[in-house]
Amino acid sequence: MFLRRALEMYEMVKRGSNGSSTVEVGGVCFGRGFVVIAGPCAVEDEMQIEAAARGVAAAGALMLRAGAYKPRTSPYSFQGLGAPGVTMIARAALRHRLPAVVEATAAEQLPLLARSVDMIQIGARNMQNFALIQEAARTGLPILLKRGPAATLDEVLCAAEYAVLEGNRNVVLCERGVRGFDRHTRNLLDLAGALRLKELTGLPVIIDPSHGTGQRSLVAPLVAAAAAAGLDGAIVEVHPEPARALSDGEQALDLADFAALMTRVREIAPTVKVASQACR
Amino acid sequence: MFLRRALEMYEMVKRGSNGSSTVEVGGVCFGRGFVVIAGPCAVEDEMQIEAAARGVAAAGALMLRAGAYKPRTSPYSFQGLGAPGVTMIARAALRHRLPAVVEATAAEQLPLLARSVDMIQIGARNMQNFALIQEAARTGLPILLKRGPAATLDEVLCAAEYAVLEGNRNVVLCERGVRGFDRHTRNLLDLAGALRLKELTGLPVIIDPSHGTGQRSLVAPLVAAAAAAGLDGAIVEVHPEPARALSDGEQALDLADFAALMTRVREIAPTVKVASQACR
Amino acid sequence: MFLRRALEMYEMVKRGSNGSSTVEVGGVCFGRGFVVIAGPCAVEDEMQIEAAARGVAAAGALMLRAGAYKPRTSPYSFQGLGAPGVTMIARAALRHRLPAVVEATAAEQLPLLARSVDMIQIGARNMQNFALIQEAARTGLPILLKRGPAATLDEVLCAAEYAVLEGNRNVVLCERGVRGFDRHTRNLLDLAGALRLKELTGLPVIIDPSHGTGQRSLVAPLVAAAAAAGLDGAIVEVHPEPARALSDGEQALDLADFAALMTRVREIAPTVKVASQACR
Amino acid sequence: MFLRRALEMYEMVKRGSNGSSTVEVGGVCFGRGFVVIAGPCAVEDEMQIEAAARGVAAAGALMLRAGAYKPRTSPYSFQGLGAPGVTMIARAALRHRLPAVVEATAAEQLPLLARSVDMIQIGARNMQNFALIQEAARTGLPILLKRGPAATLDEVLCAAEYAVLEGNRNVVLCERGVRGFDRHTRNLLDLAGALRLKELTGLPVIIDPSHGTGQRSLVAPLVAAAAAAGLDGAIVEVHPEPARALSDGEQALDLADFAALMTRVREIAPTVKVASQACR
Repeated sequence: MFLRRALEMYEMVKRGSNGSSTVEVGGVCFGRGFVVIAGPCAVEDEMQIEAAARGVAAAGALMLRAGAYKPRTSPYSFQGLGAPGVTMIARAALRHRLPAVVEATAAEQLPLLARSVDMIQIGARNMQNFALIQEAARTGLPILLKRGPAATLDEVLCAAEYAVLEGNRNVVLCERGVRGFDRHTRNLLDLAGALRLKELTGLPVIIDPSHGTGQRSLVAPLVAAAAAAGLDGAIVEVHPEPARALSDGEQALDLADFAALMTRVREIAPTVKVASQACR
Repeated sequence: MFLRRALEMYEMVKRGSNGSSTVEVGGVCFGRGFVVIAGPCAVEDEMQIEAAARGVAAAGALMLRAGAYKPRTSPYSFQGLGAPGVTMIARAALRHRLPAVVEATAAEQLPLLARSVDMIQIGARNMQNFALIQEAARTGLPILLKRGPAATLDEVLCAAEYAVLEGNRNVVLCERGVRGFDRHTRNLLDLAGALRLKELTGLPVIIDPSHGTGQRSLVAPLVAAAAAAGLDGAIVEVHPEPARALSDGEQALDLADFAALMTRVREIAPTVKVASQACR
Repeated sequence: MFLRRALEMYEMVKRGSNGSSTVEVGGVCFGRGFVVIAGPCAVEDEMQIEAAARGVAAAGALMLRAGAYKPRTSPYSFQGLGAPGVTMIARAALRHRLPAVVEATAAEQLPLLARSVDMIQIGARNMQNFALIQEAARTGLPILLKRGPAATLDEVLCAAEYAVLEGNRNVVLCERGVRGFDRHTRNLLDLAGALRLKELTGLPVIIDPSHGTGQRSLVAPLVAAAAAAGLDGAIVEVHPEPARALSDGEQALDLADFAALMTRVREIAPTVKVASQACR
Repeated sequence: MFLRRALEMYEMVKRGSNGSSTVEVGGVCFGRGFVVIAGPCAVEDEMQIEAAARGVAAAGALMLRAGAYKPRTSPYSFQGLGAPGVTMIARAALRHRLPAVVEATAAEQLPLLARSVDMIQIGARNMQNFALIQEAARTGLPILLKRGPAATLDEVLCAAEYAVLEGNRNVVLCERGVRGFDRHTRNLLDLAGALRLKELTGLPVIIDPSHGTGQRSLVAPLVAAAAAAGLDGAIVEVHPEPARALSDGEQALDLADFAALMTRVREIAPTVKVASQACR
């Protein structure tokens, strides 16, 4: 009963975004080739984000990721730099000609983000914060929508529908691990679920193996797996000095490991940077 | 590593709310006896909320629940009446001398809620919407914080800590079912988890067997179970005409079934209405 | 598709055991009143099982439980006393006039068990060891079938059907916790699932809160909860000296705690010992 | 406490099988290159198994799989051909020079299997049927041990340790999906868990995407993913006429799809057939 109703509901998402299956973000085309987004969990200072942006650009990443507003489980954890952090990310992205994606955790952050970056992330904890999704969609920026840790695929698609109904069809979905029961990985990355999301909808689908496993050693193999399986990309945590990271250091790659990962990805899948007109 | 860090973090919640383990809401005391909150999933019109409030008050419920802003999985489902609904709930509650709890889904709703009702609910989908929790806590009203469907107990306590750190120690926790794998129940109600939450903290803990199971026939047995196990209460969906409910009708009790439930609860546990000073 | 097929399949279980909903075990009737089975995880020596049997009988348990063949996760854990253990359990049960239930882990153990005890347990790890279920059913003894940690309710009923199709309709089902994701309990006890099992079938259903939670402090509240909710009983680990138990000591009650539990149960539910003819 | 104990326990598995990380099965070497095992869920008749064996051999599979004893959830489902089926599988395997793996569900089946096939499978439902694992290990044949749907990685390794302690170090582990909550896939294939198993032990690890997803369309992408990620192989259900299969037809590939899958695998990973001496 619940399921049948849900199935009927995401009609617009099922028909695909703007008639095709691509989403263009600052000149990068999701849905044609394998796109790697990389950067630190959180921007910490100018030097760190500059080193990260320079490093991931050199290795072949097509987009920069970094958090300024961090939705941390504990109120005592580092909460991000806020608005000044957004500016630091935007400047580093500009210097290295990488479009940037930054997570929003409250509606009041959206005007600054809309002026500064190229894509707004809705994190897993806010996947059913529909008010935030609607506000983010209204900025007109493309949305990176992460699957919540207990979300069914139908629920992911319904959440995307909230954005699409605001007139913004530029939604990229991201599988980042569901809640599992084994202590050896932080979450349980549902690669098959990501592939099913792609079958069920016209939207591009990527994975986040950093949060999805919480294990540095598993990130590169899973990015290779996603590329081989035909998904549309991956978002990877990379830090110039993982041991000194203020958050999630245990799952971040250093720049050398990230460069090796990119070499492996290129062997498996074409990493295509497409100009904005070509994505249409 | 993750766990150890989390454990150290909810220090204020662990020490208990204002030195004891009670929370007072409009003259009702959580933490001394078993409190039943009842009412419809959503307010639909004046007559429906009046009939529901009159019925649950007559049967012995101590508080009224009803939704005005509904965080529905699908954007095509009934989304609630919004601000006019809040007023309807407040008037019905006043007429029957029941304190009311209403869910907030966005910060902009808080001023009206703070003027109109007695307790603000943070729903399961927003359990890690920390910005909303902080804003809700700042209203000064008691908070009913529902556990998310994939939230560990540590995460629930950390979310509560976000409220407590705003200076609002009046938090009641609610177990409403985690994501399960069996189709015969909507969610998997974690009664033992609710008991552990109570052991781990000074906060009152109640259950929501309506969302927790999605099965009308299981609601009364589970309320009886919670009372027998020593939990602090339950929040129950009751509708004057479940078959005509605009949302969640399949799990709502009618007024006759609810009265039978209250009779059973009274056999097992003392349902105590305490004046505000007595709760201290 | 999977689900619909499964639903059609457990026809005999759905029609109930021998036309009613009771199962008689050595003079104890499951399905009329709340039956508490108690005893140590494993028999360790004559003195331990004697002390346990005497204690639980005095407190009002109606059946004795103890393991002789232990299906331990690790091959290095205590594996049980084997056949000599069965004899010790049988003698202690006889001395205190308690029917005994013992788990079988291999078909070769069944002849001795059939001669010595009153009920054969199929443990959670063997819930889909259909060859063992069939062999156990052929002994003619009543079967205590525990739900596996990832088993759907349909799978439980299909497993029971394997026994019933051998002509043995005396099957009692037991919910003992499914695999959960929270470290604060060993498993996630699905009380609502147990209630649904009872709705779906004519078979009695009990819970195992000891394995279901792995926490001594939660056992008594959950037995009270099961009694209040209308289930048919509970199986509880009780050890004369939990701190010295060779297995599962952290979840075992001592005799004083068990006596207190029985007092609480009697307040909530009638504990009825019925002679075998009366069960019909 | 549980976890720490478990960690100390699988010492022999952690040290690796016979000092290296390879297992040789009838001339095929697991642990050097990517090995694809293929064949029908169950042998149905001589013509079906002959067509399957011929087809998968021609496409490049290195081993034949087929079930003769089927552990079906429902007693009313097709239960397999039993002993005559074993003979049919063995003859087809011999004709096409493919070593064969067949599942055992009871100890009494082991002598015939040991005479007829090259590897014994312990299925997911029997992963903690330790008596069966020990008996199977004593045959001296290599063991294919499938992870149970709720098994932690520690539990998988402990189960393998039961085999290794019988003196049989030739164990290959198989991830076949854990119990998930989404209806769009039959199980939740834990690719990262499979990679962790490989990190934690010296044993080869493969995946079963057919049972792991229950979706024909996902099988080939996930085999490609496993190869790209560096796992040791995959076991794939292939049926000459999936629409007429007596079991699991909805997840079986036909011969043309399987041939396409093998072509894709060869692009990504070297599929190496190694003579038995070379595996050492």
